[in-house]
Amino acid sequence: MEETFVPLEGIKNDLRGRLMCYKQDWTGGIKAGLRIWAPTTYIFFASAIPVISFGEQLERDTDGVLTAVQTLASTSICGMIHSIIGGQPLLILGVAEPTVIMYTFMFNFAKERAELGRELFLAWTGWVCVWTALLLFLLAILGACSIINRFTRIAGELFGLLIAMLFMQQAIKGLVDEFRIPERQNPKAIEFLPSWRFANGMFALVLSFGLLLTALRSRKARSWRYGSGWLRSLIADYGVPLMVLVWTGVSYIPSSSVPSGIPRRLFSPNPWSPGAYENWTVIKDMLQVPVVYIIGAFIPATMIAVLYYFDHSVASQLAQQNEFNLRKPSSYHYDLLLLGFLTLMCGLIGIPPANGVIPQSPMHTKSLATLKHQLLRNRLVATARKSIGKNASLGQLYGNMQEAYHQMQTPLVYQDPSARTQGLKELKESTIIAATSMGNMDAPVDETLFDVEKEIDDLLPVEVKEQRLSNLLQSTMVGGCVAAMPLLKKIPTSVLWGYFAFMAIESLPGNQFWERILLLFTAPSRRYKVLEDYHATFVETVPFKTIATFTIFQTLYLLVCFGLTWVPIAGVMFPMMIMLLVPVRQYFLPRFFKGPHLQDLDAASYEEQTALPYNIATQSEFGAGASQVGEGEILDEVITRSRGEFRRTNSPKVTSSTPTPGNDLKGLQSPRLSFNSRRGELSAEHSPRSGTRGPHSPMAREVRLANLGRSPLSSDSKQHNNK
Amino acid sequence: MEETFVPLEGIKNDLRGRLMCYKQDWTGGIKAGLRIWAPTTYIFFASAIPVISFGEQLERDTDGVLTAVQTLASTSICGMIHSIIGGQPLLILGVAEPTVIMYTFMFNFAKERAELGRELFLAWTGWVCVWTALLLFLLAILGACSIINRFTRIAGELFGLLIAMLFMQQAIKGLVDEFRIPERQNPKAIEFLPSWRFANGMFALVLSFGLLLTALRSRKARSWRYGSGWLRSLIADYGVPLMVLVWTGVSYIPSSSVPSGIPRRLFSPNPWSPGAYENWTVIKDMLQVPVVYIIGAFIPATMIAVLYYFDHSVASQLAQQNEFNLRKPSSYHYDLLLLGFLTLMCGLIGIPPANGVIPQSPMHTKSLATLKHQLLRNRLVATARKSIGKNASLGQLYGNMQEAYHQMQTPLVYQDPSARTQGLKELKESTIIAATSMGNMDAPVDETLFDVEKEIDDLLPVEVKEQRLSNLLQSTMVGGCVAAMPLLKKIPTSVLWGYFAFMAIESLPGNQFWERILLLFTAPSRRYKVLEDYHATFVETVPFKTIATFTIFQTLYLLVCFGLTWVPIAGVMFPMMIMLLVPVRQYFLPRFFKGPHLQDLDAASYEEQTALPYNIATQSEFGAGASQVGEGEILDEVITRSRGEFRRTNSPKVTSSTPTPGNDLKGLQSPRLSFNSRRGELSAEHSPRSGTRGPHSPMAREVRLANLGRSPLSSDSKQHNNK
Repeated sequence: MEETFVPLEGIKNDLRGRLMCYKQDWTGGIKAGLRIWAPTTYIFFASAIPVISFGEQLERDTDGVLTAVQTLASTSICGMIHSIIGGQPLLILGVAEPTVIMYTFMFNFAKERAELGRELFLAWTGWVCVWTALLLFLLAILGACSIINRFTRIAGELFGLLIAMLFMQQAIKGLVDEFRIPERQNPKAIEFLPSWRFANGMFALVLSFGLLLTALRSRKARSWRYGSGWLRSLIADYGVPLMVLVWTGVSYIPSSSVPSGIPRRLFSPNPWSPGAYENWTVIKDMLQVPVVYIIGAFIPATMIAVLYYFDHSVASQLAQQNEFNLRKPSSYHYDLLLLGFLTLMCGLIGIPPANGVIPQSPMHTKSLATLKHQLLRNRLVATARKSIGKNASLGQLYGNMQEAYHQMQTPLVYQDPSARTQGLKELKESTIIAATSMGNMDAPVDETLFDVEKEIDDLLPVEVKEQRLSNLLQSTMVGGCVAAMPLLKKIPTSVLWGYFAFMAIESLPGNQFWERILLLFTAPSRRYKVLEDYHATFVETVPFKTIATFTIFQTLYLLVCFGLTWVPIAGVMFPMMIMLLVPVRQYFLPRFFKGPHLQDLDAASYEEQTALPYNIATQSEFGAGASQVGEGEILDEVITRSRGEFRRTNSPKVTSSTPTPGNDLKGLQSPRLSFNSRRGELSAEHSPRSGTRGPHSPMAREVRLANLGRSPLSSDSKQHNNK
Repeated sequence: MEETFVPLEGIKNDLRGRLMCYKQDWTGGIKAGLRIWAPTTYIFFASAIPVISFGEQLERDTDGVLTAVQTLASTSICGMIHSIIGGQPLLILGVAEPTVIMYTFMFNFAKERAELGRELFLAWTGWVCVWTALLLFLLAILGACSIINRFTRIAGELFGLLIAMLFMQQAIKGLVDEFRIPERQNPKAIEFLPSWRFANGMFALVLSFGLLLTALRSRKARSWRYGSGWLRSLIADYGVPLMVLVWTGVSYIPSSSVPSGIPRRLFSPNPWSPGAYENWTVIKDMLQVPVVYIIGAFIPATMIAVLYYFDHSVASQLAQQNEFNLRKPSSYHYDLLLLGFLTLMCGLIGIPPANGVIPQSPMHTKSLATLKHQLLRNRLVATARKSIGKNASLGQLYGNMQEAYHQMQTPLVYQDPSARTQGLKELKESTIIAATSMGNMDAPVDETLFDVEKEIDDLLPVEVKEQRLSNLLQSTMVGGCVAAMPLLKKIPTSVLWGYFAFMAIESLPGNQFWERILLLFTAPSRRYKVLEDYHATFVETVPFKTIATFTIFQTLYLLVCFGLTWVPIAGVMFPMMIMLLVPVRQYFLPRFFKGPHLQDLDAASYEEQTALPYNIATQSEFGAGASQVGEGEILDEVITRSRGEFRRTNSPKVTSSTPTPGNDLKGLQSPRLSFNSRRGELSAEHSPRSGTRGPHSPMAREVRLANLGRSPLSSDSKQHNNK
């Protein structure tokens, strides 16, 4: 994305890019067939469950003016509109916690004003939404989203971890509350006797931990040894929803011996109960709001606008991380404009607006990458089997596979043709290398010696099934929840808390900030294990002390942000703290950290552009000659890694001893799928290789292969050993 | 062990062997220093907790005549005596479930006879013990234990799995009972109100699953990445007792808001309460038992004698499996004789006798193997560091390490000197191979390129710290439990059930029968994963269908035995069913399975002796030439495996295609430690390489390296893939 502050320029660019692939967004989704339901249901649950829970929270806090019906409706309507006419269809919209906090604050404010009161609360929020929408229009038109380029990993990942902490906090708080008498309930009811309350709390512990542990396990089903392939796939794809069903079922087992209120279940009015539709006609009350309050609505509106601008863009960015190798363009400006319209619409019909949500948006992309992997894999395996059936040689086999791979690549008009060719070239290169390493290129392939599925798993690059269908389907299903409310009410709240914890934990892997925190707690003698797994570049190129300092700084910053969320109303403004990270990163951090280190820990495109000549030099030195290197040790290493074997950087074979960050092997390494078969999940973020998307994307950071032997980390660990 | 049926010959042999190493049994234990406490506490808990639980069961079933005080006392006294004057100090003694069932049956019998009644029950059991002791003497003197040679893996592992099932059954039953009103308690008590009962049950679920999951995790602490080394060691060594403490602590958290009976805790009289000493003077009542009952006591005595003969020998055998590479001799005959004396003693003082227990005995050996590994490792690491400090070359380094290793080997007079030399030769061979593979033998070692701890972990063979101290200490501690009863009573029963489940699960890994059952459920396309891990020979040499048939047969047999345990009193005789496996294995199975297959699935020494010429031929073909092979692919493979890397049998490089069971590489392979660092536990049993112990031990079964490429398993998996 270009940094453009020319008014409307960003929106125009976005529209141009997305229109070019609009048709393919739909045909691609439809062609995926029934498999599209796997990411759809996965995201549907991730989207609906928090929204229901926030709806309940809102109901308690607004005396029932707004309920889960409204939050679900908003999520569904905004989601459907965004999936159809939005820019980036990977972005998931939903009513989020900050919105709930803002609405609670506004309700408390309005309730105490005689001129507003409970009756005009929604009308007043309508005005807030009008102002918010105007501000969002302004930001979108002026190209404020260009700043997203300055938004580096440090800010995005800090935000991601903060959201995970908030989800986990909600899970713990919810569980603790299961032992208490809920507010606004009859404390004399039988289920609130001390004994039953204690029983309820213990039951809640069982249900929530049961859900959490089984859901986490089911996500790894693909790597299980037991059960047939389709069963493992089914569990991995639909395990989480299935576990919600299973544990809801479990919650009914003791129903004959416990009062009906145990365990506690979701509480929400049926959508057809009287009063549930009060809000929809709020527009006719809006003119009754006194002028001073209409103007005053500008104050909360600025806060919400900043919040949405931030949340929406970051959610979109995290859904489009470099590691996913997306082929279709981003659409920050246009999406913000659309968000303005959506907010306006929500305000006028009296429902809380939805915006881009974390961690659902990156979860969506990840699940679509798994889908794409399955699709590519099935096609290539079929091709390979067919070739083997025809007694093809290894060379022919790979030729046919490449052909099939080629066919699966939808030619996108907007795309830089060189980029596309490169994607193919990478596959070709790696396949030829693989074929060469197996010796005989021309003899017929004996399938007994050649595990087709495994080879293909190893060869495939990370790609994402970018389409609009899954988003449209999931938001439609969220809408369906309103009708299915009687069914949803059977879910115990404790299952909800387990699900919140699950979402928090699911969002951690791939977050380099999190992985650096773990690295701090890793025993020096065990750091080699990090090197054995897929790991980010900095692990090898940056001295441990620098990593530690950087991470501790970031952790302290995180804790400050987390502390801020506890401050009653200013707490909603914690995104400001995170936005403050942009100047901190740009002007403050470079004084304390060396440039190359900072680039490895937190690549910033604006810095990298200045370092470009340097990179070009090294690239021509190594990268151009890469295909002639042939079978050298370096290529072996690439193959070894891509095949999921260990890379032992402690190996005594390698003798180079100091990090030489200049030895980038950029052209050589392909954005390969690090489908970690042991964990059975897609962990593209673990890979230090980031893809290039479009000519303006940040420069790809590559492993510095030459430093394999003596990374700063291993030398550091050695020092520890010697102590 | 020789098969000798000459009266007293077996006992004499045993005594001769054990006396020779008796002194070393003590000095070795004392030299281990404080580390001896790790296996000691581990086994103490594994020993005491079931005994307490069986004591409680006995108390309910005998109207309080026998309690946990008596079972603990018996376990402690017998254990101490056995550890001091017993033959095999690896064997753990304890009051076991079958004893409890027999005593319950005898109590019910005596209670209803006017001549005996509750008063003379213990006196009568005294007579039963007298008869039992006589029978055991007879069996020991006549050399009945010689039959243990005919007791193959199929029987031992089936018995092990059956015990695991019984432990798990107890855990589940205990948990279910937590929701019910216990017998002989006041059902009007507040804690038995439906609400509190439900709360208690749910709390029990939390506590037992909490203990189970954390205990299982803590056992793997050694392979954790986080925390310093000593902390990880501490948790791995003492994690299970620690978790019992932690979860007992957790059980007190809600104590202010729940009645005192929740959660339920161990119930046992204090040892100083009146009546707790009634039993000790039972000998003076023994002559009051009517003669007809004295004679009649012979009937239960035969059952108990058969039971003990079987249990004791099998427990001893499982504690001395080939995979442990024990250096000291076995002592089946003498131990059975001693058991006779112990039974007699217990009968005369009115406590239920103790006998060799599973899974505690093999758990004991395993924990001592871990201890020995730690000791060897520390010594060798220190030596290596010292050598590196003196700028030694790799050759010198390994020389010094070998020297240190040599010093750690206590020369045992009784031992076949060739066997000892071989153990050293193996280390030497492997170190030289390792050194060669690293290239430069003479240059000074750079520790930065050479991970000493890792190398040593890989080089060390499985050895067990065979001594008497841990057994003596643990049985003394069990005795201390009687005094500590007020403390023990703080443990919730639910923690006990969790511990039972933990013991059942801990006993599974290494049980080939269990692993074959898992193999049956492994998806054909995932069987290559089994080959990648340490795996037993049969996986590569026996066709999958044969493995499946054999395993299904064994499983059906297991289920019959398990069903038998449910039959009220005859159920105690399930060992007869397992003993029936000896003739079944010897005469029946060979008709349905090919000789070599059967040998791989269930090595039987009596069969192997007939197959000897066959093996010798193949050994001379490969084995003798092994040391000259030098650096060929085969040795690479050996090194690779021993370093814990994957062995990819599906690798397209290997082209041999049919299993040729003749290519044994016996002399070549060393009994190496398969310390699976990923699982962090000693898994000697996974290794197909079994050591040779003494000239009469079963022939060692070795990996058939030549079959790496196309194992029956992988060909089978291919057929499935083609479907």
